[in-house]
Amino acid sequence: MQPMTDAELLTGLERIVGHAGLVTDADDLQTYLVDWRGAFRGRSPCVVRPANVAEACAVVAFLHQQGRPVVPQGGNTGLCGGATPDESGRQIVVSLTRMDRIRRVDPDDNLLVAEAGCILTNVQDAAEAAGRLFPLSLAAEGSARIGGLVSTNAGGTAVLRYGMMRELVLGLEVVLPSGELFEGLRGLRKDNTGYDLKQVFIGAEGTLGLVTAATLKLFPRPREVVTALVATPDMGTAVKLLRFIQSEAGDNVTTFEIIGETAFRMLLDHTPELSSPFGHVPACAALVEVASFWRDFSPREAFEGCLARAAEAGLALEAVVASSEAQAEALWRLREQIPEAEKRAGAAVKHDISVTPARIPAFLAAIDARVAAELPGSTVIVFGHLGDGSLHLNVAPPGLGRGPIPRGLRDQVWALVHGEIAAFEGSISAEHGIGQLKRDELWRYRPALDRRLMTGLKRLIDPDGTMNPGKVI
Amino acid sequence: MQPMTDAELLTGLERIVGHAGLVTDADDLQTYLVDWRGAFRGRSPCVVRPANVAEACAVVAFLHQQGRPVVPQGGNTGLCGGATPDESGRQIVVSLTRMDRIRRVDPDDNLLVAEAGCILTNVQDAAEAAGRLFPLSLAAEGSARIGGLVSTNAGGTAVLRYGMMRELVLGLEVVLPSGELFEGLRGLRKDNTGYDLKQVFIGAEGTLGLVTAATLKLFPRPREVVTALVATPDMGTAVKLLRFIQSEAGDNVTTFEIIGETAFRMLLDHTPELSSPFGHVPACAALVEVASFWRDFSPREAFEGCLARAAEAGLALEAVVASSEAQAEALWRLREQIPEAEKRAGAAVKHDISVTPARIPAFLAAIDARVAAELPGSTVIVFGHLGDGSLHLNVAPPGLGRGPIPRGLRDQVWALVHGEIAAFEGSISAEHGIGQLKRDELWRYRPALDRRLMTGLKRLIDPDGTMNPGKVI
Repeated sequence: MQPMTDAELLTGLERIVGHAGLVTDADDLQTYLVDWRGAFRGRSPCVVRPANVAEACAVVAFLHQQGRPVVPQGGNTGLCGGATPDESGRQIVVSLTRMDRIRRVDPDDNLLVAEAGCILTNVQDAAEAAGRLFPLSLAAEGSARIGGLVSTNAGGTAVLRYGMMRELVLGLEVVLPSGELFEGLRGLRKDNTGYDLKQVFIGAEGTLGLVTAATLKLFPRPREVVTALVATPDMGTAVKLLRFIQSEAGDNVTTFEIIGETAFRMLLDHTPELSSPFGHVPACAALVEVASFWRDFSPREAFEGCLARAAEAGLALEAVVASSEAQAEALWRLREQIPEAEKRAGAAVKHDISVTPARIPAFLAAIDARVAAELPGSTVIVFGHLGDGSLHLNVAPPGLGRGPIPRGLRDQVWALVHGEIAAFEGSISAEHGIGQLKRDELWRYRPALDRRLMTGLKRLIDPDGTMNPGKVI
Repeated sequence: MQPMTDAELLTGLERIVGHAGLVTDADDLQTYLVDWRGAFRGRSPCVVRPANVAEACAVVAFLHQQGRPVVPQGGNTGLCGGATPDESGRQIVVSLTRMDRIRRVDPDDNLLVAEAGCILTNVQDAAEAAGRLFPLSLAAEGSARIGGLVSTNAGGTAVLRYGMMRELVLGLEVVLPSGELFEGLRGLRKDNTGYDLKQVFIGAEGTLGLVTAATLKLFPRPREVVTALVATPDMGTAVKLLRFIQSEAGDNVTTFEIIGETAFRMLLDHTPELSSPFGHVPACAALVEVASFWRDFSPREAFEGCLARAAEAGLALEAVVASSEAQAEALWRLREQIPEAEKRAGAAVKHDISVTPARIPAFLAAIDARVAAELPGSTVIVFGHLGDGSLHLNVAPPGLGRGPIPRGLRDQVWALVHGEIAAFEGSISAEHGIGQLKRDELWRYRPALDRRLMTGLKRLIDPDGTMNPGKVI
């Protein structure tokens, strides 16, 4: 069979999704062909936007038949190039943005069925309207979409209490590389009838199939949340502080984020409208939220007492407890403005890593020592989700300004940080995934047996290699 | 290569595990060759009991080389024949009971590493000794072992709040069918470096590998737990009662078990030492536990107020709130004595099913109607984990006494109940798994695409079919 020309391909695709479902205008295409950070750029003769699952199946089947690779794309907020096509012009972006229906909200069963194109905040809002909580929360929540959040097993600030996206998924609907539909949306809490196949697709970054919908867990909403910023002498003490608060509040600790000293200083230096509520920059600041779900109990007094006892025990130096929603938002802003401040501060080599929390102090000490020796004059900026052991760690070498980071320097810094991560049995990608960005790093650090099993799984489900090739594997 | 005789095989195995690791005495073998219910019985020339992971690898590699199938076995408390060899005498039981070390308890990281042979209560106790909670709890917890609990994705009474075993596993160590070791014990909460391979082994019932150890999540312990038995007009109201209590207590509802009227009557008829705390048998009784984790808050008054409001709303008819640990235990005994009463009551066709909770009333009405029409005179006994939609549903046809249930009758009842389950998008195995017992049922009800993927996964990881053949697949 003669391969189709791109023009014939477009005709075939338009027959499936109609004119409204096909983007071919060069200008319109641009937003789909470059990633959020602008680090990856690819080519594609068109972007296909199926309106429903039948169209999604037909599109994937047609592209498979034509041997054209599929690049699934949701909100295009990923940080690793996982949703950007390569430069061959052969890969076709399939955007799920038109499949943005919430099919069902069921508060009696504490679940919700959302199509892949639903924006996270819309799902949070639908849950709230039904008197429930969908806890997943992360910086890109106003743009990130459910399909991508499932496919990258998204994390964020609520993982400490509610787990990663994997733990929030009760069911999945996935178009396989052949165009066949895996129908697994039943929202059962208990189901042990053979292998739990949906697990394979969660976190696979679209390399095994195109997620079109998910059944998600809903939770009771907290009645009251109290937010505090707590200064601690160092990161290790912050870990102890977390366990101390948990000893008095249990799983009612819903957030425990940290801002290291250099990160806090960078934040203030590059965000003139912000100031430290302590009047100075602490060695380590923990943003802590506690919740109460009981009708007749306000956690405020208990939390304040807890923080006072933590101070007596030397675990807290100072604490600011928000007394209004506006104050709580002001504290959150400190944490949330860091990425913007990072951009303004200039070039840095970024890492998205995790170790178990108790190992964080030793790990950071090892990083500091090696950076001082091997990259003298560099600043190490640390912030993130201490409760999960997940840190965003940036190394800013001196004299780079805003300019691009030379590949060799980036590789040197990665080798240093990821090498220590390996020594501390951590992860080189805690939340953001692999995409194109860290494929080589994954292949370097993951054991040979794991790589063989991963390759086998890919071949089993995508024997022709047409689902998001060049990512992860 | 000439196949080894059994005598040569025993010599080879003894070389690996020593005399202490090999059971060959015919009497000693018996407990390993019959399942807990006495429903499945098999043959094996020996049982191998490796003392550590190196021995486990060597045993599996050796048996693989000899083409002899491996039957992994833990506490042998399964209900589906998943750990019993067939009658060929070729399958070799590998018992993990000697690998019962808790390798590490780490309260700072809220995790614990347990070998496959650890008994569940020992893991619960180790967590408690470290000031933490390991929440998994089920009837067989004094005998069931971690490897089996991982391999069957165990459920039980705490799933409502803490999820199935899958959600409690942070890491796994697994001997693959070839004897190679999958090393995935790192206890990271956030790790998105490629496919999460451990998910494949959880709930695979030993058909993809031999689990030798698991890293398990620990949680803060509740400070106070209050237990109540609440009578409701029917099952549907019980579901509404659960959501009502959650609206006042949130996720502090840690248990919500139910006992249907016929189950309660059977319990009292066959357990003379028990009586109903209501003085009569209610249409539906819910065993509810609420917890508080806050240092300065007792949930008792709030819970009593909540139950009073539930009564005003017509969701509760009567409630007994335990005022001491002894009273709480007495309430739990009602729930826990049901399986024993079932045995005394005589033969019944058992089901381990789930639907989403809100569909329970319609599902049970459909079952009652069909049983009345197709199996007149039969009793339908229902109890279980209403909060998860998971029910143990027994159908006792008239006139069977204690005698065995004819296969044809069992199949007729299964077809009725499982047929309705399919219509209500439920599960024919909520907790207990498939094993040998439900393999045909699984193959009947699971979609063709799922079956193909399952078969593919099995072939990928166990190409020679030597891991627990005859189970699940």
